[in-house]
Amino acid sequence: MSVLVVGSLALDTVETPFGTAKDAVGGSATYIATAASYFTMPVRLVGVVGGDFPRAGVEFLEKRNIDLEGLQVIKNGKTFRWAARYHYDLNVRDTLLTELNVFEKFDPVIPDSYRRSRWVCLGNIDPALQRRVLEQIDKPRIVIGDTMNYWIERKNGDLRRTLNLIDILIVNDSEARLLANEPNLIKAGRVIRAMGPRIIIIKKGEHGALLLTEQTVFSAPAYPMESIVDPTGAGDSFAGGFVGWLARSDDLSEENLKRAVIYGSALASFGVEKFGVEGLADLSYLQIQDRFRAFREISRFEEHELSYGSHDFS
Amino acid sequence: MSVLVVGSLALDTVETPFGTAKDAVGGSATYIATAASYFTMPVRLVGVVGGDFPRAGVEFLEKRNIDLEGLQVIKNGKTFRWAARYHYDLNVRDTLLTELNVFEKFDPVIPDSYRRSRWVCLGNIDPALQRRVLEQIDKPRIVIGDTMNYWIERKNGDLRRTLNLIDILIVNDSEARLLANEPNLIKAGRVIRAMGPRIIIIKKGEHGALLLTEQTVFSAPAYPMESIVDPTGAGDSFAGGFVGWLARSDDLSEENLKRAVIYGSALASFGVEKFGVEGLADLSYLQIQDRFRAFREISRFEEHELSYGSHDFS
Repeated sequence: MSVLVVGSLALDTVETPFGTAKDAVGGSATYIATAASYFTMPVRLVGVVGGDFPRAGVEFLEKRNIDLEGLQVIKNGKTFRWAARYHYDLNVRDTLLTELNVFEKFDPVIPDSYRRSRWVCLGNIDPALQRRVLEQIDKPRIVIGDTMNYWIERKNGDLRRTLNLIDILIVNDSEARLLANEPNLIKAGRVIRAMGPRIIIIKKGEHGALLLTEQTVFSAPAYPMESIVDPTGAGDSFAGGFVGWLARSDDLSEENLKRAVIYGSALASFGVEKFGVEGLADLSYLQIQDRFRAFREISRFEEHELSYGSHDFS
Repeated sequence: MSVLVVGSLALDTVETPFGTAKDAVGGSATYIATAASYFTMPVRLVGVVGGDFPRAGVEFLEKRNIDLEGLQVIKNGKTFRWAARYHYDLNVRDTLLTELNVFEKFDPVIPDSYRRSRWVCLGNIDPALQRRVLEQIDKPRIVIGDTMNYWIERKNGDLRRTLNLIDILIVNDSEARLLANEPNLIKAGRVIRAMGPRIIIIKKGEHGALLLTEQTVFSAPAYPMESIVDPTGAGDSFAGGFVGWLARSDDLSEENLKRAVIYGSALASFGVEKFGVEGLADLSYLQIQDRFRAFREISRFEEHELSYGSHDFS
C-alpha cells in the first residue's frame, strides 16, 4: 500500500569517533522514505531542498523508487544544514549548527497524486505543519507521527491538537517522559495514549524499543551492535521500517505491530553501520530477513520441563 | 544442589517517593539467599550481624529454610547500617549513610558443613574476602560473583585476581563500562570475559539484562513495572533467582542460562514491589511461574508468512 512521508531533507556534517561526513544527504524524510522503500511502494516524499542539494541525493532517492513529485526545489535557496559531534560513547552529541534555510518557510503542499495515500508518516516537523499535511489527505488509513523535545516544550498546544489526529506515535524515552510528565515509561505510555494516539512506540536506543497498546506491552531488544559508525537518522530509519512493514502487510494486529517494531529496529541497525544514508543504500531481502531472525534469536527463550515439575519451588 | 551465599546483612533506612522504611532487614546476602531459597535447598548463608540485629530478621531467613550456621553474631557490635533516598524517577539515589560497624572487620569463616557447597554466590564485598571464601570451599562447581564501582576503582588488582576465579560475573551496565573501560556493552562483555569469567550478566535496571557468553548474546526484557515501591536489593534478588534456578536445574546450557536470567529478573521484579525484603516474603510456585511466562509474553514475536514470500522486498 502507498506511504506518504513528510519531513526534512538536509545536508548533515557529522563527526563521530570513527570519522567525519561532510554535507551528507540526510533529514528525517530521507531516512524514513529510504527505509520504507524496502517494504512497499509507492513511497511518496514531501519536502523541500535548495538549489545546492546534490544531484546524487536525488538519484539516491530515485534509485529506491521513491516518488519525488512532492519534493519542492527552491533554486535560489539553500538546503537545511545540520552539524553535530558525537561523544566517545555515541549516546551523547553536541549540535554544532542548525541552519534551517529553505526549511524555515516550508509549506508542505501535497500533490494531487498523493492525496489518496493510505499510510502517512509525519516526520519530526512543526506540529502545525503536520496538521496541514493531514488536511490535504483524503482519509488516510493510518497516521504515524514523530515529534521531539523542542515541540513538546515550545508548541505544546499545537502538538496536542496534532496528537489527536495521530494513530501511532513514535518517540524516544526522554520525549515520552517529557510529554507525559511521568518518569515511568509504562505509565507515560498510558498518559500519552489518553492524548489521542492509540499505539505508542518508545525508542530506547541501545536498549531497544517498547510497543504500548491498550492490551499489550512488547519489549523489543536492541541489535547487539559492536560497530556503530554514525547514529544519525536511527530513529527515522526505525520509523521508515516500521511504517513500511505495516503498509506492506496491511495488518494492525498486535502480533504484526510487534513484527513492525522489529523491522524498524532492523533498518535502524543497518543505518548506523555506515555514515549518513549509506547504511540503507543496498540492502537485500535476505539481509533484512536474516537480521529480523537475529532479533528473534537474541530475545527468544523457552520454559524448562522442570518448570512444570510436580514439586513446589519452596 | 547446594548454594553458598556470602555477602552483607544490613539494616537499611530507605526513603522513596512512596514512603519510608526504617532499619529494615537488608544486605546483599539477605536478598540473594532469600531469592535463591525459592528454587533450591540447602541455601547456606555466610555473613555477620551485631547484637542489634532483630530476631524477626533471623526468623525471616529461617522461615525460608536458609542455613544460618555461617552467620556470625557479634553480640557487642552493631549491624551494618545503610540509608538512602531515592529520587522521583527511582533511577537515582543519594546515599545518606554508610556505617560498616561489624561488617568492617568481617572475616568470612566457612563452617565445615558448608565446604562442599556446589554453587557459590559471592555478593558484593571486598574482592580479597571473596577470594578468602573460595579458598575454604572444596572445588565448587560454579562460582558466581558480583562487584561494584568502589572495588573496580579502589581495589582493581585484588578484583582482577578474584575475577580469575569466577565463572559468572553479574554487574550492572555502568560497572561493566567502568571495569572494561569501554562504552559499548557488547564489547565490554568481551573485554571482561578475557579477565576470567566466561559468562557475563549485565543488569540494565528498567531496560532488562544482557547475557553474554562466547557464542551468545541474549537480551532479557524488563518486567513492565508500574509501581516500584523500593528498588533496594533488586540486583541481589536477581542474583539469587539466577543462581537458585541454575542450582535447581544443574544445567549450564545456553538455553538454561537464558531461563536463569528470566528467573532472576522475575525475583527482582517481585522484590521491588514492596519495601525491603517484604516483596520476597511469600511467593508461590504459581506466582513465579506466571511471572516467568509474562516475561516471555512481552518479548515474544514470530515471523509473518509474508516474510517467506516469493517476491523481493525491494
